[in-house]
Amino acid sequence: MSYRIATIPGDGIGPEVVDATLPLFQTAANTHGVDVEFVGYDWGSQRYLEEGAMMPDDGLDHLADKDSILLGAVGHPEVPDHVTLHGLLLPIRKGFNQQVCKRPAILFDGVESPLRGYEGGDIEFTVFRENTEGEYSDIGGREHVGFDHEVAVQSAMFTRAGTEAILRAAFEAAREREGHLTSITKSNAQAFSMVFWDEVVAEVAADYPDVEVESLLVDAASMDFIRRPEEFDVVVASNLFGDILTDIGAIVTGSMGLAPSGNINVDGDYPSMFEPVHGSAPDIVGQGVANPLATVLSGAMLFEDLGEEAVSEALWAAVRDLLADGDAPRTPDLGGDASTVDVVAALETRL
Amino acid sequence: MSYRIATIPGDGIGPEVVDATLPLFQTAANTHGVDVEFVGYDWGSQRYLEEGAMMPDDGLDHLADKDSILLGAVGHPEVPDHVTLHGLLLPIRKGFNQQVCKRPAILFDGVESPLRGYEGGDIEFTVFRENTEGEYSDIGGREHVGFDHEVAVQSAMFTRAGTEAILRAAFEAAREREGHLTSITKSNAQAFSMVFWDEVVAEVAADYPDVEVESLLVDAASMDFIRRPEEFDVVVASNLFGDILTDIGAIVTGSMGLAPSGNINVDGDYPSMFEPVHGSAPDIVGQGVANPLATVLSGAMLFEDLGEEAVSEALWAAVRDLLADGDAPRTPDLGGDASTVDVVAALETRL
Ligand SMILES: CC(C)[C@H](C(=O)O)[C@@H](O)C(=O)O
Ligand SMILES: CC(C)[C@H](C(=O)O)[C@@H](O)C(=O)O
Repeated sequence: MSYRIATIPGDGIGPEVVDATLPLFQTAANTHGVDVEFVGYDWGSQRYLEEGAMMPDDGLDHLADKDSILLGAVGHPEVPDHVTLHGLLLPIRKGFNQQVCKRPAILFDGVESPLRGYEGGDIEFTVFRENTEGEYSDIGGREHVGFDHEVAVQSAMFTRAGTEAILRAAFEAAREREGHLTSITKSNAQAFSMVFWDEVVAEVAADYPDVEVESLLVDAASMDFIRRPEEFDVVVASNLFGDILTDIGAIVTGSMGLAPSGNINVDGDYPSMFEPVHGSAPDIVGQGVANPLATVLSGAMLFEDLGEEAVSEALWAAVRDLLADGDAPRTPDLGGDASTVDVVAALETRL
Repeated sequence: MSYRIATIPGDGIGPEVVDATLPLFQTAANTHGVDVEFVGYDWGSQRYLEEGAMMPDDGLDHLADKDSILLGAVGHPEVPDHVTLHGLLLPIRKGFNQQVCKRPAILFDGVESPLRGYEGGDIEFTVFRENTEGEYSDIGGREHVGFDHEVAVQSAMFTRAGTEAILRAAFEAAREREGHLTSITKSNAQAFSMVFWDEVVAEVAADYPDVEVESLLVDAASMDFIRRPEEFDVVVASNLFGDILTDIGAIVTGSMGLAPSGNINVDGDYPSMFEPVHGSAPDIVGQGVANPLATVLSGAMLFEDLGEEAVSEALWAAVRDLLADGDAPRTPDLGGDASTVDVVAALETRL
């Protein structure tokens, strides 16, 4: 098999972690008889500062014929956040109908959780986050701007299609795993959107009698990700709730530097996009110490999504093995003093 | 001075913690020459199950002439959450224009945090949560119900008045404390509401040149409450973000059983309401082991709000002293085996 994969290194440490890991993906793929060609796009904040746009107008056309997309990070101290996001990340998620965002949270052997009493292996769950609508809908407005009676409205829109898509993906995953799904809600305070969400959960659940569904309020879930993270397996949440919960999931499992994610087009009409959950980390940019593991695992998810299980497993295994080895190099976020390339080299020998 | 205070024990452990602590409040008040009369209202889910409403139609009229309100908890396994809330809690918060919700998060001496490396005394911050609008606005609807093209919309409404009220309360508190305020936002994804929020922050900040303001995205803040809770002092957030963050704040400081809160009418036109952050805890109801400390501290906040500093301080001191004493009784949520009344008795001797 042969694949063409678009890479968008982006801003900050994005290029550091993407450039360092591409050779590793080549090796992993070739070892298993898979051919990959990476096609790089130097879009991002630098381009915005020079040319006034994060990507060209026909950016999505460039990506549309690729088999998948690997993104590094976006975000730049001199560019407002809503520009970096609405200029690149969100248009791809929405434009390619990547309705399902999948984010595993794993406390690997050899990694310390900030939570007392948790050891490597104790936590392993996956959050399915709705990815193209909900609280991120670009709907709203402001009136009486500057006056005392000014009002701003931000509307969260939930379609049945979008809600069903994320729920079905989560129910499928729960069926494959332990048959348990936690649905995050806030229907006590949000009687329109979240009561609708709960109803669609009940409807979809009828197709999955083998999956047990638990409903949890988002505030309680935020607590429970800290109080009893070991009890979660598959979690499904709206766009905003998923955003918050996956950051909590990343931190309780030891480091943002380990959290991968996939933005998945479930119909297969457009490419999916894989990216580390961490941002562009302006504070450590240029030091060569960014943790590449979240990108490696995002690549592993990418190959799994392409159906190349063997390549994916090889990457997962290399990361697990490296982390479990107390003598292996690790970056400062994991308490070590190794560089990005040290870590990649140590993975390379493990492939 | 003499005060009339409405008490609404409510559901589940609510009556257990309120009934047990009223005599303590009497003692603390009397010791400092303050007279209090408690006027109890047996509203809640039991009333709903028997009479079809959580409180009478003219419920708010009964409360309006009181100097303050102490609430236990609402929530019942046999009553839908939106009924318990929209039938009692939210109407009071909104009907009495309690725009400011104040929630301290303190890791007391003698209490263990679930976070590694934190000792009693290490964490102490207060979240100011907008309390009457934002993401809890009762605005939205559904169309094409049951069809494939069904859409649900939930609108978050932010008024300048509401936003300014919470911000001014937070800036005032920051000025009194360490001069540092963290404003929670999500303007990268919510370009109407949160960009407005950020603008009002900037405007109000102009009146507080002595306060340094940091802006933090809600997802990053959820992480940072776990990663670096010791660095926060005063935090200000919208209704939903505040809801989530205060639950995280409660859990990292050792127990939901310790977290008090105040719903404050800043204009003084209506009574404020004080309540523990914890819920009705159906799992432990009737066992007599509910932790009364969150209620005691809510009472302490109530007296402070009435201007009765000495009474307030006495209650805070009694709780701090009890927790710091390794031999003092504590309830199971804090790793002990004492009952609610044991703990109250131990506080009584400390007053
Ligand atoms: C950068 C931001 C818009 C984004 C989001 O909220 O989706 C990020 O936090 C994430 O989780 O991928
Ligand atoms: C019960 C619920 C509506 C409430 C809220 O979300 O405000 C609670 O979680 C709280 O924090 O007081």
